[in-house]
Amino acid sequence: MTGSEQKKAVILLSGGLDSTTVLAIARDMGFQCYALSVQYGQRHEVELEAASRIARQFGVVEHKVCHINLDLIGGSALTDPEIAVPTELSEGIPVTYVPARNTLFLSLALGWAEVLGSTDIFIGVNAVDYSGYPDCRPEFIREFQRLAALATKCGVEGSTITIHTPLIDWSKDSIIRRGMELGVDYSQTLSCYNPDKNGLACGVCDACRLRRKGFEQAAVPDPTRYQDCS
Amino acid sequence: MTGSEQKKAVILLSGGLDSTTVLAIARDMGFQCYALSVQYGQRHEVELEAASRIARQFGVVEHKVCHINLDLIGGSALTDPEIAVPTELSEGIPVTYVPARNTLFLSLALGWAEVLGSTDIFIGVNAVDYSGYPDCRPEFIREFQRLAALATKCGVEGSTITIHTPLIDWSKDSIIRRGMELGVDYSQTLSCYNPDKNGLACGVCDACRLRRKGFEQAAVPDPTRYQDCS
Repeated sequence: MTGSEQKKAVILLSGGLDSTTVLAIARDMGFQCYALSVQYGQRHEVELEAASRIARQFGVVEHKVCHINLDLIGGSALTDPEIAVPTELSEGIPVTYVPARNTLFLSLALGWAEVLGSTDIFIGVNAVDYSGYPDCRPEFIREFQRLAALATKCGVEGSTITIHTPLIDWSKDSIIRRGMELGVDYSQTLSCYNPDKNGLACGVCDACRLRRKGFEQAAVPDPTRYQDCS
Repeated sequence: MTGSEQKKAVILLSGGLDSTTVLAIARDMGFQCYALSVQYGQRHEVELEAASRIARQFGVVEHKVCHINLDLIGGSALTDPEIAVPTELSEGIPVTYVPARNTLFLSLALGWAEVLGSTDIFIGVNAVDYSGYPDCRPEFIREFQRLAALATKCGVEGSTITIHTPLIDWSKDSIIRRGMELGVDYSQTLSCYNPDKNGLACGVCDACRLRRKGFEQAAVPDPTRYQDCS
């Protein structure tokens, strides 16, 4: 696809490893990319700086940052300062789960897609490493896609809205290998749930552990800047 | 139900006629009511003052106001100052439709419900007068309910989440009659899409016309304060 033939897509971009890879994949598929980030009172707001850098590097058509005060409702280690981020991998649904977050993010992406006249939304959910989060599962995504068809003007008019989840069944090391083939510079991404204000990763939260293991398994040097060994 | 037996419910409260009636109905059903309003860059932000008054009058357990800058994506007369609010009833999907708004509002309500341990959400959608909005239709609500079961921790654990839409097939005059039986003071509510800064209604937008007709058909004096005849 070139120029005016290119279809538009909205990509949910947190600034982490997964969503950055998704952006690279969407671009590689020939979409005109519109990146959407959300500032929701997360303790790792510094990830939004990573999102901005990445959006610029990838030359997205537009990068919007939506602000929502989700800390208002709390209920997660990511939005309630009184709930600590665990430093060990946890069983079951972790306390870093943010209630209804992906439903909300996809709703925002859906609203923007509708305004842009786009019927393609990309999200970097992954059901392998993060299987504890209910809203990262394929059945959730399929259901959201059905909802999108009913929720929107373009759906009512007969368009199909596609929620693309290219990473859903990939291991972290496969994600990293694919991203590197597509030219992703992972040193620019931030996955940590508990970074310091300079954007250095803690190295011990779930997100850091899974990311580090991914680089090990991909047999690629880990470019992450950690607090201990920066 | 009394005291600790009372179930909790989250009620989406805009401060308009419909959502206020829904709050009265939820209270009458014996729920402990948690009201959620959303400031989303709507031109009729003054409706939030109405929502606060009403939440107080009804003695809700808690009233939260969530802020989202939906004007960022625009696409609606309610969030884009360059799109005028029509002064005549329109055919098809009106320009006051806000892309994905109810999906977003229900997601927020779902998040809060999950934190509260509630499985009941109330929303004042109505498919009679506002049939132009895709996300006010019963099929949309049914689909969201299915999504809610997959999106949340409590859904995964087997709880059923109910999206209550008591007004969905009621005419405006039936809504008004029921609200008055339940003690709603409609002079405190604001439905207008284009009020002045004092909260006086324009009298000519879709919302004003439907509301005015409702009072006429209910044979009840219209307590709305209009800009022309305040």
